[in-house]
Amino acid sequence: MLERFKVPEQDRVYVAVERIRAATEGILRHNGVPADEAASSADVLIKNDLRGVESHGVSNSLRRYVAEYGEKTLNATPNFKIERETKTTMTVDADGALGIHVGPWAMQQAIDKAKEFGMAAVAVKNSGHLAGCGYYAMMAAEQGMIGHCMTAGGANQTVPTFGSKPVMGTNPIAWAAPARDMPPFLFDVATTQVANNKIGLARRIGANIEPGWVTDLDGEPILEEVAPPDTGDYYLLHIGGTRENGSHKGYGLALMNEIICNELSGYGPGPVVGGSGGHFFQAYDIEAFTDTEKFKDDMDALLQYIVDVPPAKGFERVLYAGLKENEDEKERMKTGIPYHKEVIQWFESYCAEADIDCDLR
Amino acid sequence: MLERFKVPEQDRVYVAVERIRAATEGILRHNGVPADEAASSADVLIKNDLRGVESHGVSNSLRRYVAEYGEKTLNATPNFKIERETKTTMTVDADGALGIHVGPWAMQQAIDKAKEFGMAAVAVKNSGHLAGCGYYAMMAAEQGMIGHCMTAGGANQTVPTFGSKPVMGTNPIAWAAPARDMPPFLFDVATTQVANNKIGLARRIGANIEPGWVTDLDGEPILEEVAPPDTGDYYLLHIGGTRENGSHKGYGLALMNEIICNELSGYGPGPVVGGSGGHFFQAYDIEAFTDTEKFKDDMDALLQYIVDVPPAKGFERVLYAGLKENEDEKERMKTGIPYHKEVIQWFESYCAEADIDCDLR
Repeated sequence: MLERFKVPEQDRVYVAVERIRAATEGILRHNGVPADEAASSADVLIKNDLRGVESHGVSNSLRRYVAEYGEKTLNATPNFKIERETKTTMTVDADGALGIHVGPWAMQQAIDKAKEFGMAAVAVKNSGHLAGCGYYAMMAAEQGMIGHCMTAGGANQTVPTFGSKPVMGTNPIAWAAPARDMPPFLFDVATTQVANNKIGLARRIGANIEPGWVTDLDGEPILEEVAPPDTGDYYLLHIGGTRENGSHKGYGLALMNEIICNELSGYGPGPVVGGSGGHFFQAYDIEAFTDTEKFKDDMDALLQYIVDVPPAKGFERVLYAGLKENEDEKERMKTGIPYHKEVIQWFESYCAEADIDCDLR
Repeated sequence: MLERFKVPEQDRVYVAVERIRAATEGILRHNGVPADEAASSADVLIKNDLRGVESHGVSNSLRRYVAEYGEKTLNATPNFKIERETKTTMTVDADGALGIHVGPWAMQQAIDKAKEFGMAAVAVKNSGHLAGCGYYAMMAAEQGMIGHCMTAGGANQTVPTFGSKPVMGTNPIAWAAPARDMPPFLFDVATTQVANNKIGLARRIGANIEPGWVTDLDGEPILEEVAPPDTGDYYLLHIGGTRENGSHKGYGLALMNEIICNELSGYGPGPVVGGSGGHFFQAYDIEAFTDTEKFKDDMDALLQYIVDVPPAKGFERVLYAGLKENEDEKERMKTGIPYHKEVIQWFESYCAEADIDCDLR
């Protein structure tokens, strides 16, 4: 994450992982989620926070989820319905489950099928926020496979190349792959210039946003550095930003995501039908294609080659997707996770009101 | 394709599809490729040219292939070896075949397996240039499936975010999906700002290249509009261009491509081992996930919604990936394909020397 998105030193409260996990599980249980599923749901947010993906951790998400459970737009006790199933595929109606609720289960279905048949995918519809895709892709990598995940929730946020009105959401995508001694590859990005959550994060910490990240309400790209516009006063731009700089590439990726998450799942076109859309979870069994031990050695050689590339002038080192996340995770397991004090205040006041056990200091 | 990359009006020679196809097949047969395989190989280049993807048609590619057949770095009569096979996966050593030689066969294997088992993928190694990935993804769409293809040939061309030296190639990716009445979705891009072939194309037609497309030999991005540098005097940049504009997203996509094409195929890390790398072909059977007729209706609704979006100021209309390609194909079937006169001269002189039947005028 860019330096500007980090919580400023003076506003940080470091919280031990198990404390924030317990509080998060408690809040989900309080909202009706069964204990096991509260634990697997909370794990998604906590791992995101551990890996430095604060935009998809508890800070931005939990308040929203609690509101959605309160309004009954989310179902805390869903009954997942398997609509179609083959040896390698499954289509699931999530019955209004939060994405982090159905996601870990659905990804494990894909992994189990891939173990047996070489590769597999699970398409999910009628589900809420997934909190990014990296967590699910990493589930496969942790089980010795290549993982892939996408989600197309939240249409009408991002302006297509040449367009004046938004069509799709941020439509994030992720892939992960294991190595042997090097930290695993974990690539997890929105197909927009930035995730929408990052605009909120910038607002909270008083940071500017870069040229070419958003448009005004006529779809004109804002091409200077500005303070984050208020919610409702901007649209997002796809990866690339402008046509000259290749926004049709980010736009095409987002459309691929929309087609696979919403049309292949049978949900229907997000921009047309609105509502909560689809997710997609896929796993490739490495052993089905090649020798897993050679694969891991080759991954180490590749990733070592990359980190050994001399940095360009003004930069410290060359990274690859997943390296910094792995370093953050190791460090935060020791130091705790740095949250904005305002986030911790929300936890404490919510837990006090709801009489949830919560000890974050 | 950006207007600047089109062949200037005064340099165009329009050639009927079947004439350029016959000449291309003749040249491949002359180089030892068996007739059936010369036909399926030529089809890749001709369809690219028909769809307006001149950067991956006969103009840039055929001379190079002829040289590689001449030097015996390509095998005109390869014996494809299936190294591993499961119900849904296959790993193939292409025995030095040109990518357009093994590609149509490998993609059809993936499609056939997906028809039976829901989804499937074929990893190929030891193969030459694939001529982009769109053709192969479209093979699946034409057979009512979602297609996906990647290739990681040609390492050490593109500088990673923060780096000073190139690591990967242009690592293109493609997905395609059918609709009912709307032209199919066909998304086919390099994970660099532009395909390397486009720099050559710009050089041939005397066009400039945009800021943030390439770096100098220290890996510093060239941030003004310049004439295309000579081969060997520049490196490419990943989608996004600079870190602030999200080059880590293009870089991550390229690395995903490298891992799946080269490590999963068992070839080994392209930047380390060099040589010709791997391709990846995947198909999803729509019917395994949902009702294909509903899928096609949903695709039409989605794509119609997009083309109905009002354009931003200064633009004519909103496109989606595959729409312009489809329009170009329909038009060029009637008008012939516009080639640069210099390309036609090469064909005529090569055919004359090699005594190949060639009637392009």
